[in-house]
Amino acid sequence: MKALETISWDKDTRSVLLIDQTKLPLSYRIIRCRTVDRLITAIRRLEVRGAPALGIAGAYGVALAAFTIRERDFHHYFHLLESAALEIGNARPTAVNLSWGVLRVLAKIRLAGSIEEVRVVALKEAQRVADEDAAACHSLGDYGAALLPETCTVLTHCNAGALACREWGTALGVVRSAIESGKNISVIACETRPLLQGARLTAWELKRDEIPVTVIPDSAAAHMMRKGEIDCVIVGADRITRDAVFNKVGTYMHAVCAKSHDIPFYVAAPFSTYDRVHTEQEIEIEERERDEVAHFSGHTTIPDGVPVRNVAFDATPISLITALINERGVILPASGWVELAEKRRII
Amino acid sequence: MKALETISWDKDTRSVLLIDQTKLPLSYRIIRCRTVDRLITAIRRLEVRGAPALGIAGAYGVALAAFTIRERDFHHYFHLLESAALEIGNARPTAVNLSWGVLRVLAKIRLAGSIEEVRVVALKEAQRVADEDAAACHSLGDYGAALLPETCTVLTHCNAGALACREWGTALGVVRSAIESGKNISVIACETRPLLQGARLTAWELKRDEIPVTVIPDSAAAHMMRKGEIDCVIVGADRITRDAVFNKVGTYMHAVCAKSHDIPFYVAAPFSTYDRVHTEQEIEIEERERDEVAHFSGHTTIPDGVPVRNVAFDATPISLITALINERGVILPASGWVELAEKRRII
Repeated sequence: MKALETISWDKDTRSVLLIDQTKLPLSYRIIRCRTVDRLITAIRRLEVRGAPALGIAGAYGVALAAFTIRERDFHHYFHLLESAALEIGNARPTAVNLSWGVLRVLAKIRLAGSIEEVRVVALKEAQRVADEDAAACHSLGDYGAALLPETCTVLTHCNAGALACREWGTALGVVRSAIESGKNISVIACETRPLLQGARLTAWELKRDEIPVTVIPDSAAAHMMRKGEIDCVIVGADRITRDAVFNKVGTYMHAVCAKSHDIPFYVAAPFSTYDRVHTEQEIEIEERERDEVAHFSGHTTIPDGVPVRNVAFDATPISLITALINERGVILPASGWVELAEKRRII
Repeated sequence: MKALETISWDKDTRSVLLIDQTKLPLSYRIIRCRTVDRLITAIRRLEVRGAPALGIAGAYGVALAAFTIRERDFHHYFHLLESAALEIGNARPTAVNLSWGVLRVLAKIRLAGSIEEVRVVALKEAQRVADEDAAACHSLGDYGAALLPETCTVLTHCNAGALACREWGTALGVVRSAIESGKNISVIACETRPLLQGARLTAWELKRDEIPVTVIPDSAAAHMMRKGEIDCVIVGADRITRDAVFNKVGTYMHAVCAKSHDIPFYVAAPFSTYDRVHTEQEIEIEERERDEVAHFSGHTTIPDGVPVRNVAFDATPISLITALINERGVILPASGWVELAEKRRII
């Protein structure tokens, strides 16, 4: 089966192509974003999601802006492009990769001297972001795979797979690399309320690759840990600060429970996920709309008028993480881990 | 507003009336069980659920059998009645209250000398079980309320409310008693996948009583504990053995996380929930069908062919429980707690 391409650039129509992640597993549909507005809508609706994929979306978004802005005056053109880039970078607040992807392309085009050059450079850099992401996932997959025993049941939460990246995946990249290296791996996918990325996306892409996967309600994970049915936990990340890992809400609960059962807890995320500027307290955790929890396919699950807290992410203190895995190596967090990892050029 | 009557006996038609808990909050519908088979179906479908309500259903079930068995030979009649009682008691395996309710009525009718006497005695005892349950909930509610501070946000899981009992509730009975005594209580209800008893039932009955309630996905509870937004956890129970509390899957995860945040974790359940005969290892944990997790109102949430583990309950070791609350008092579990509680006649 052909590798998934979660997000790509269509050079014929100069548009961004996305697998619509809100429709899986019921239907496999490609969304074509011809405008920046459509791409921002896709990001907000989670038609494209997953931190590394958002990084690529940010980068392609700037390229898309470069091609679609019709202004001829270079100075004015550049100003409009920067505004569009800012808007893309702010479409969702928690994952650092989105603004990282935007900034990478912006940095490259600063020296361009013409609109045409901006377009060429922006697209080239965005393509590089996408290619590097694929390479990073394979590399971090290999580093992570080495940490797993020969036979291993991996618990994962949300989707940190090919659908969250250009291909291969981060947490699921580790699973794929381990299987490729001959290990006997099966996956327990937490369904991941409210939007069921685990049930819908992780189950779909693992089944597609014939990797054994079983879905459980999120709240059953601790029970399965206690029963000895989970050998390790691997999740992705939306932002890694000096003091915390931000990831889909539920990650923190799994980390607390893994610690309580002496189960290794791994975070697999590329270099682009690290944020050495901020600390946990400075990061906004996105709260999303009530309907994501209170409705399902048009059916009401919560009585009208009852409020909902729909926190999309949580923060897991670094002290609960056994290892951080990225494309440059494995980091065992401890006091001063940022400095050590910087010295080893891992982050 | 009139108090809910989750389960009752209709003396005119000699049938058991149930609030259909699968239809709330969309519609409020009463199911009339005229036969034992219909009652067993209601138990299996979770049209009636909640450990104390299942105790009452078991008791009324024997009364229903007593009235509906048409055999005239007393010996044969009694034999058929015992078979029906056994079948009711086995309709679901984990909650001890169901068989407890059945056995209480069976024990009472053993000395009856005629079919008519069996019917009268069975119904009287079943009514007593129901009445005692209501009194027990009010009493344990008062004991539990005394443990709460003046202002308190309570996290609860699943529905241990009026809808899980005849009225008032166990965990939510504590909340109601605390509010009645003038305390300022609000509730965070975990939605409770897969069947959303928290979102549907707890939110519905608290809103009905104008008690402040907010619904969250199950996996957000630990995050809210870490943010200081939860002051204590109160749950019900389906069975309390010497070594563990069996309750809706997810309870164990909340208990581990509460311990990790030094948040009190209370279990409110009547006397009928205690099982001094078995230990955790001997209790079967019900696994229910795939579709409860994989479908929602006819919509597929998990790709076809991907397996699901749908464990309905989990076991929380007694060491994670701050206090057990029943209608006779409060038990602080410790080594030898069963003997101490027996000595104080609390269990």
